Amino acid sequence: MNSLFADRMQSAHRSFIREILKVTENPEIISFAGGLPNPRFFPVEPIIAATAKVMQDKVANPLQYSTTEGYTPLREYIAQRYAKRHGLKVHPDEILITNGSQQGLDLIGKIFLNKGDFVALEKPSYLGAIQAFSLYEPQFHTATLQADGIDTEQLAILLAQQPTKLFYTVPNFQNPSGITYSEAKRRALATVFQAQQTLVVEDDPYGELRFIGEDLAPLKSYLGDQAILLGSFSKIVAPGLRLGWICANREIIDKLVIAKQATDLQSNTLSQRLVYQYVTDNDLDEHIATIKHHYGQQRDLMVTAIEQNFPPEVTYTRPEGGMFLWVTLPPSLSAMDLFDYAAKANVAFVPGKAFYVDGSGNNTLRLNFSNADAQMIEEGIKRLGSAIKQLLLERTACAA
Amino acid sequence: MNSLFADRMQSAHRSFIREILKVTENPEIISFAGGLPNPRFFPVEPIIAATAKVMQDKVANPLQYSTTEGYTPLREYIAQRYAKRHGLKVHPDEILITNGSQQGLDLIGKIFLNKGDFVALEKPSYLGAIQAFSLYEPQFHTATLQADGIDTEQLAILLAQQPTKLFYTVPNFQNPSGITYSEAKRRALATVFQAQQTLVVEDDPYGELRFIGEDLAPLKSYLGDQAILLGSFSKIVAPGLRLGWICANREIIDKLVIAKQATDLQSNTLSQRLVYQYVTDNDLDEHIATIKHHYGQQRDLMVTAIEQNFPPEVTYTRPEGGMFLWVTLPPSLSAMDLFDYAAKANVAFVPGKAFYVDGSGNNTLRLNFSNADAQMIEEGIKRLGSAIKQLLLERTACAA
Repeated sequence: MNSLFADRMQSAHRSFIREILKVTENPEIISFAGGLPNPRFFPVEPIIAATAKVMQDKVANPLQYSTTEGYTPLREYIAQRYAKRHGLKVHPDEILITNGSQQGLDLIGKIFLNKGDFVALEKPSYLGAIQAFSLYEPQFHTATLQADGIDTEQLAILLAQQPTKLFYTVPNFQNPSGITYSEAKRRALATVFQAQQTLVVEDDPYGELRFIGEDLAPLKSYLGDQAILLGSFSKIVAPGLRLGWICANREIIDKLVIAKQATDLQSNTLSQRLVYQYVTDNDLDEHIATIKHHYGQQRDLMVTAIEQNFPPEVTYTRPEGGMFLWVTLPPSLSAMDLFDYAAKANVAFVPGKAFYVDGSGNNTLRLNFSNADAQMIEEGIKRLGSAIKQLLLERTACAA
Repeated sequence: MNSLFADRMQSAHRSFIREILKVTENPEIISFAGGLPNPRFFPVEPIIAATAKVMQDKVANPLQYSTTEGYTPLREYIAQRYAKRHGLKVHPDEILITNGSQQGLDLIGKIFLNKGDFVALEKPSYLGAIQAFSLYEPQFHTATLQADGIDTEQLAILLAQQPTKLFYTVPNFQNPSGITYSEAKRRALATVFQAQQTLVVEDDPYGELRFIGEDLAPLKSYLGDQAILLGSFSKIVAPGLRLGWICANREIIDKLVIAKQATDLQSNTLSQRLVYQYVTDNDLDEHIATIKHHYGQQRDLMVTAIEQNFPPEVTYTRPEGGMFLWVTLPPSLSAMDLFDYAAKANVAFVPGKAFYVDGSGNNTLRLNFSNADAQMIEEGIKRLGSAIKQLLLERTACAA
């Protein structure tokens, strides 16, 4: 059998994170491992109401096949929201609805990547993007993510060394690091790419979830057609509806539509109608404000708990939004070892190694704060702090 | 820009059928071009009721992320239905839920096909499969579809000539031809493949929609792990929910799960819960009986109208189920020419050429009867008959 599988599958494995999530199904465990939005804020009643409403449409039945491009009023809504939030002018025809933004990444890989093409990544980078692109067998190269965004000098050197087809970035509250690109960094990045043929894939699932500071313009505002902007309803409405989108120029959308037809014909008709009905009948901004209020509180609690419980050798990011916080242990400590210690204390996280394509990142880990309550955060961080101290003590003892 | 696109996209085009469907949006046109189930039979009220019900689940929220493999009770239901209908023993772990069976085809291409691999197809074959596989750049070869299924002798010769990775077949009420494999043909096919490494991809979206004769066992009953069986809720519940499945041995499912994680993480949580709730609270068999009753009547009407209106030089299939009927014009006539004549008479169909990978099939066309009422069928076939006669007359006049 094994000889029948395609070459691209030889090095593909099940998501390490999804495997970890199975371990954390034990209800005793306080888990910061997931990447889940908090279900407390899913609009359950409004979705029930929207279902009853859209089902009355006898002309365009929400249970029927529909277009590959997506439901036109929803595409118009997304375009209008870009205009309202960022003054970004986008035509609805420049938007393709996808099954979550993960599908956007797959389709981008499909239309652009030949085997061996170079793709530049942030270090660390989003695991789902690494997985999606990997199946098109590119070569990855990476530049370090600093506190205010990618190291643009390092990136410029990479691009000069190798003609690079795509650069993939999550500029707002990155998964896994929680880091956000400053305005200065966005400008510097735009300058780097102006001289290049490389397309910038700007993945922005968390951009609306900012608790601290002001929203910044997307890279697409600087780069125009050179940027492909991905968005998602997963973190602002609900992920189970699997709705994201790709915003790109028409030539790219045209190829993406061909690829999507071949891949799954179209996105879920009912989900598209439900989300459009939901945003029409409800105040999405008010809903997002509620989410931000709570996630912001949870983030503050986690930062405070870390300050109180982690030893001073440990550093961490203080995210301005999103769902994740990133911890760096002293270089001598392994987050995989810590995972075992923590599991014994019934607390879980994601070791950071999975987010690096070069085998580094052993001493890093990701913590999720969106899907945790105050008690879980305080107790869980306390346990994690003890586990770190225990590991540190043992490693120091061994070294002595 | 064009230089940036991957090689696999150079020969990929928008679906010819989806382009035709745009032409037929004119409400004056009687269209037999689509491949749509009849929305009269979508379970609208039960889906509204199911939504209200599943939304009450506070433990496993139907709006949250869920597993890549799919909702376990739904996979169990599918396995039980195979056992009930065909005595086919399948473990729920051998089922992966997909976004319609089109995604199943893409994922199969992704895990099996290297560039240049051979894929055997029926001639004609389902366009969506040709498109899905094409993006993995295989070489296609084809064997003729006869009245009772593929020409197994021709197929055996093909397989002997070239090591072939996959054979793709729609054994029940094929799209586009409406042809069904006889039991003898199924046995002969199994014998051909017993001596081969080739996997059989058995696509069965229409199998439950039989109006005439008895259900036949799927090829998987004969071939076991050598067959990958695809199914869909699109034609028995509703296509807008985008739910299909792949049934295959665990080793294959394991690779498919890896590919699906990378492709879109998981299928729609809400749709999976809704369909499971629907089949739990309602009698699916009774619902399917209603669909079959009406589609069967429409099929009979279309066959009768063709008998009365088409010239004797024209041949056609008399499908035992499904949604399509296949017409073969005399070899001198082109269905593309007929399309123009028919369009002037406000009637549309799909020229058959799109279903052939070898450029043949010029004199064939596909008619859909599922999404048409009695008046449309009688009037539309009358108009189409006149158009064929007109074309025949002119071509004969030219030749004379």
